[in-house]
Amino acid sequence: MNQEIKPCCGPPSETEINSRLEKVQGRLDREGLDFYLAFDPANVFYLTNFANYVHERPFILLVPVSGRPIFIMPKLEEPHVSCRAVGNIEFLSYDEFPAPKGRQWSDKLTLALNGAKRVGVEHGCPFNVVQALDGKPVPSDAIETVREIKSEYEIARITYTSKLLSEGHRMFLSQVRPGRMIVELHGMVRDKLTRKLILDNPNTNMLNTKFNGIAQPPAISHDPHNFTDVFMTFAQGGPHVTIVNGLANGYGAEVERTFFINHVPEAAKKPFDDMLAARQLAFELTVPGADMAEVDRKVNALLISRGYEASLLHRTGHSFGVSDHEGPFLADGAEGIIQPGMVFSIEPGIYLPGIGGFRFSDTVLITQTGSRKLTSAPETLEELTIKRSGSIKDSLKNLAVKAALLKSGKNKKE
Amino acid sequence: MNQEIKPCCGPPSETEINSRLEKVQGRLDREGLDFYLAFDPANVFYLTNFANYVHERPFILLVPVSGRPIFIMPKLEEPHVSCRAVGNIEFLSYDEFPAPKGRQWSDKLTLALNGAKRVGVEHGCPFNVVQALDGKPVPSDAIETVREIKSEYEIARITYTSKLLSEGHRMFLSQVRPGRMIVELHGMVRDKLTRKLILDNPNTNMLNTKFNGIAQPPAISHDPHNFTDVFMTFAQGGPHVTIVNGLANGYGAEVERTFFINHVPEAAKKPFDDMLAARQLAFELTVPGADMAEVDRKVNALLISRGYEASLLHRTGHSFGVSDHEGPFLADGAEGIIQPGMVFSIEPGIYLPGIGGFRFSDTVLITQTGSRKLTSAPETLEELTIKRSGSIKDSLKNLAVKAALLKSGKNKKE
Repeated sequence: MNQEIKPCCGPPSETEINSRLEKVQGRLDREGLDFYLAFDPANVFYLTNFANYVHERPFILLVPVSGRPIFIMPKLEEPHVSCRAVGNIEFLSYDEFPAPKGRQWSDKLTLALNGAKRVGVEHGCPFNVVQALDGKPVPSDAIETVREIKSEYEIARITYTSKLLSEGHRMFLSQVRPGRMIVELHGMVRDKLTRKLILDNPNTNMLNTKFNGIAQPPAISHDPHNFTDVFMTFAQGGPHVTIVNGLANGYGAEVERTFFINHVPEAAKKPFDDMLAARQLAFELTVPGADMAEVDRKVNALLISRGYEASLLHRTGHSFGVSDHEGPFLADGAEGIIQPGMVFSIEPGIYLPGIGGFRFSDTVLITQTGSRKLTSAPETLEELTIKRSGSIKDSLKNLAVKAALLKSGKNKKE
Repeated sequence: MNQEIKPCCGPPSETEINSRLEKVQGRLDREGLDFYLAFDPANVFYLTNFANYVHERPFILLVPVSGRPIFIMPKLEEPHVSCRAVGNIEFLSYDEFPAPKGRQWSDKLTLALNGAKRVGVEHGCPFNVVQALDGKPVPSDAIETVREIKSEYEIARITYTSKLLSEGHRMFLSQVRPGRMIVELHGMVRDKLTRKLILDNPNTNMLNTKFNGIAQPPAISHDPHNFTDVFMTFAQGGPHVTIVNGLANGYGAEVERTFFINHVPEAAKKPFDDMLAARQLAFELTVPGADMAEVDRKVNALLISRGYEASLLHRTGHSFGVSDHEGPFLADGAEGIIQPGMVFSIEPGIYLPGIGGFRFSDTVLITQTGSRKLTSAPETLEELTIKRSGSIKDSLKNLAVKAALLKSGKNKKE
């Protein structure tokens, strides 16, 4: 796993799916379970290559401790599932939702379980599905636990997504200029990455493909989940914080940077360096055998020692795989040891109202001996201080938006 | 409610939110519940105007039988929630996920419930949230039941979305031509509708805004949820089936039509007319006081009497509101009576492998005396037989895609 794996973006082989199934069934056996009930679309996708989203018509994958899984689905979706599913799966379809008694999804569930009492149920399973079980459900995250360690195929997939997003990030930074609306770049990055992906894999599944190419300008970057102003523009100075993330045909990654336009405000210099120091420490600590919670505690301790106790809003990192945000976490409160084949974001952040936000994020593979960054983006303050002048085109566009808003009787503050 | 209500796309007033809360609390009282636990982002949005999506950091809205709701959220999101939330809500934030014992979301939940035993839990609530409750959870869909009947404000919102989507549908049909890639129109419709919406409401929430402008060509329209071929093009003839749907700043609607390019294949004429007859019957039956299941059964009976028993894949309709797909349903198996203020899709469909799919869908408001279509689109076979010639531009683009795929060593069949 220390050799770089060739990126790929195609579907898993039957061998890959079978090997996952075997690992999950091994866990079911050890946990004394007859069946495992998977409902989370990411877990279902992991074992079938079929992507769905949650709505009133349930998709339920029942994994027996041995033998082939049973996939309960609406009749309407059978041909759609057929053309995506990989592996040896039994289809069991129900008429519609809601259907009269005897023809409901829950009737099919009862039929499939055939009296089995020890059914493992994942933490996200909806209450009504749990209630439809006969016996007492056993809490288990068997699939998510298996998902924590990536196979070579999965590493190839996440490497592909990481490279694609790194390209998107370069594209994003190349188009930044003061006064330009940030949302324009989002559209550009999303469309270009989507185009590249579907040419690389014409069978790309758009149901689990999405790309974000966004940034927060200095006025709001201290509040990292706030994107309420759709008209926000890049500003002179910084800190701006980029977010280029997504799922490419089912596999996630992300890359984020703190950047400045033309100059670095005096008040931003120290927090930028302190964030880099915390990031450096996080990279050093995130190695096989380390305690996940310990990484977060030590990184936070460093930041607290430099005066940022009130400026920490989130953990050091999360994992990637068949989602762009999943466990295990580099977080105080996590329980687990870092292992080769795991993939984490490393992204300690500092958030200072009045100054802004400071965060880098990379997608990082744990190797046998350390780690390897799968994403790439500029790392130094010098590279991240972008010399760029404003454009008359942007000013005109901003004026046109203001005029349109005035005309429609609205304004941004309303 | 029989007067047309002026469309709007802005946030609800505090009075609107309070009136919803009062209705929900009235139900809790009648159901003997101390609290109701809302987790579904649509239910949380309905009572707070704050939109989130489900990830590992839970947002939980606890609605007491009287008094103000308590909103449990990650600390990271507090400023974001503050700038969206409407109404009198108590914020209770937790550190992070995962956090050490004593500082977890579940500790805040226990604190907020303060020993209350009768907690109503909605059908979609995750298993781990249910398990974090002290007492025995009581299944209840109090919020979803209140959501079934729309207020005047909500009707104004759904009317806005319906008009916007109808405009998108007109735009879509105007750009159809044989040989053109369908995905191009999707991007165009999505971008134009988004632009119009954010100019009408600069505070539009992109977290619950999305637009689809797609269609299935005749080769696949018999399989209504299959969009696996991203390069598919419009074909001479038909039936093509359009889907223009979405959520505009939190409120959903849809409009769909079956259309043809230049000519109508002989085999498509009878199913088109039979679908229209079923639709006509569905409109006649969908009136206040009617039984929801009965509507579906009668519509299906008509189609079965004309020989389509094996060609029915879904129910007659679903509802809209703070989602683009919700209960109650016009479906065999539904339990309920149609009431003024409900909003349904009316969309019986016929699906014939080798011929194609036949479906119209509109967003329809139930009035005191009948119903009113909120969406508008062509209705006759004549209007829906579009005279349009192919373009050399499309042929060149399709060739360029083929060349790019060949170059990358892939092809569509792989």
